Amino acid sequence: MKLVTFREKGKQEQMVGIMKEDAHGILPIKKCGLPYSSMQELIENINPTEWEQLKREAAKQEPPYQMEDIVLLAPIPKPAQDIICLGVNYRAHAKEAEEFMHMEFDQAAEKSDNSQAIYPVYFSKRVNAATAAGQEIPNYSGLVDGLDYEVELAAIIGKDAKNVPKGSGKDYIFGYTIMNDMSARNLQTRHTQWYFGKSLDGFTPMGPCIVTADEFSWPVRLKIESYVNGELRQSSNTDHMIFDLDYVISDLSRGMTLKAGTIIAMGTPEGVGMGFQPPRFLHPGDVITCEIEGIGTLENRVSARQDGENQ
Amino acid sequence: MKLVTFREKGKQEQMVGIMKEDAHGILPIKKCGLPYSSMQELIENINPTEWEQLKREAAKQEPPYQMEDIVLLAPIPKPAQDIICLGVNYRAHAKEAEEFMHMEFDQAAEKSDNSQAIYPVYFSKRVNAATAAGQEIPNYSGLVDGLDYEVELAAIIGKDAKNVPKGSGKDYIFGYTIMNDMSARNLQTRHTQWYFGKSLDGFTPMGPCIVTADEFSWPVRLKIESYVNGELRQSSNTDHMIFDLDYVISDLSRGMTLKAGTIIAMGTPEGVGMGFQPPRFLHPGDVITCEIEGIGTLENRVSARQDGENQ
Repeated sequence: MKLVTFREKGKQEQMVGIMKEDAHGILPIKKCGLPYSSMQELIENINPTEWEQLKREAAKQEPPYQMEDIVLLAPIPKPAQDIICLGVNYRAHAKEAEEFMHMEFDQAAEKSDNSQAIYPVYFSKRVNAATAAGQEIPNYSGLVDGLDYEVELAAIIGKDAKNVPKGSGKDYIFGYTIMNDMSARNLQTRHTQWYFGKSLDGFTPMGPCIVTADEFSWPVRLKIESYVNGELRQSSNTDHMIFDLDYVISDLSRGMTLKAGTIIAMGTPEGVGMGFQPPRFLHPGDVITCEIEGIGTLENRVSARQDGENQ
Repeated sequence: MKLVTFREKGKQEQMVGIMKEDAHGILPIKKCGLPYSSMQELIENINPTEWEQLKREAAKQEPPYQMEDIVLLAPIPKPAQDIICLGVNYRAHAKEAEEFMHMEFDQAAEKSDNSQAIYPVYFSKRVNAATAAGQEIPNYSGLVDGLDYEVELAAIIGKDAKNVPKGSGKDYIFGYTIMNDMSARNLQTRHTQWYFGKSLDGFTPMGPCIVTADEFSWPVRLKIESYVNGELRQSSNTDHMIFDLDYVISDLSRGMTLKAGTIIAMGTPEGVGMGFQPPRFLHPGDVITCEIEGIGTLENRVSARQDGENQ
């Protein structure tokens, strides 16, 4: 099932709905008898009986909204906590990141001698408000040098996870979405820790929907791609992650409770702007298109305004 | 004014109150006619008229609770977002951290040749629930090697801050508290980015109160100390920070909106466990006492239980 957060054009009220691709429309979950007015509330509270009810109603009801009647918002417009991200979690990306940052991820990712990775790199990204598909990304001219894109598979935790044994991670996943982990390479590098360079307002495009976990086989093997102005830049498969979701949920939950609604972005494959020689960073007006098989397309333009009014 | 979050012994309801040191008691703000039931709500909504009312009532009313009648909670028990932290923000601590981690904070803090620091190190810390004064800290035996303490001055942002010019940071500060930035040195080091080693459940003791910003001169010059089992370990002054609050609020807010309720922990001075040769990390049963002049004392014991039941 594809779940979305949306509003009717010209109205402010946010709703949660089911995207019915066969009917090219959106069916609000309230029409299916579910009381939740936000995705976070749904994630925290939905029970198995309600899931069955939702599936039953979705199969028989016509969507009252066509896509042209509504505005899609990010599926979780205001994440309840910062997003947990994995760095250098695809082998070939680890290499390009090392070269650009003059850092060695020697304990954390692929070593130059091709020996195995040992520990994942975890960092976080503050998201005051996630950017919806179609919304502009600020360019931060004057502050950001090296604006870069990173297509990532993001998993949403469905119930509080603590001390999850290996092999049980799947039970804690609510669903998946696409995230573009926008990054300011100059800030990321010069502040040593990556937090600030990842956390600028508008740096987290997310969407277009959440695909519920039952739709995919496990572990998830999905084609993942990004384009800049239509030119293919990243093309890989989530199967090439160094640390998979099962590992990450077990590893983190030994110490941290991953609360329902937690978003974990699983890292980006090779082909980001900093990986080119010379680097190919984003410019005002550029369009980034992120695609993950079975989830959809997340497209955003870098604002062409230089005056900071969008910042 | 000293503001606290507390509950009456034997009851669950959380309240916000004024700690009246002259009367050794707590006056709930609701008795002063303010409607807020949490510190976050108060921070987001209180207006100048209500402040005046609060001060007036605090001066004339007797506190209905004595300290022995209540349980102090962390002043913001569930921070609305992850805590923003500064790393290596006191000169002498930068040196001890470099030596332990075999990293050079060459762009970010004091260089070995004593030239000026250039950029602050920012990272974040997930806090599902802040640990109150007096509550135990889990020891995570089996997971954590190198459990360490870090006394820090934490500032709480009082209104949304974006593009704050230098010199205006003061206007955005609601108040100050003490934070112990508990750290798992093995996790912090091996995962390259510090996030996981800082974000374990129970790793954020905070309290005992928030002192409102009007109580201190600007910039804040406060004695800051920590003790382990009564032995002085850290002793410095917030005046020795490399980057002060005015700088940090201006710097971060160029890109990130610092929302009301944001907590910024300003880094720790020298004398943490990893700074000793050999390191003097914490053990089950150890008591850490953090003190900042004018705010009070934040004392917590490391749990002596080895069975993980407290984790």
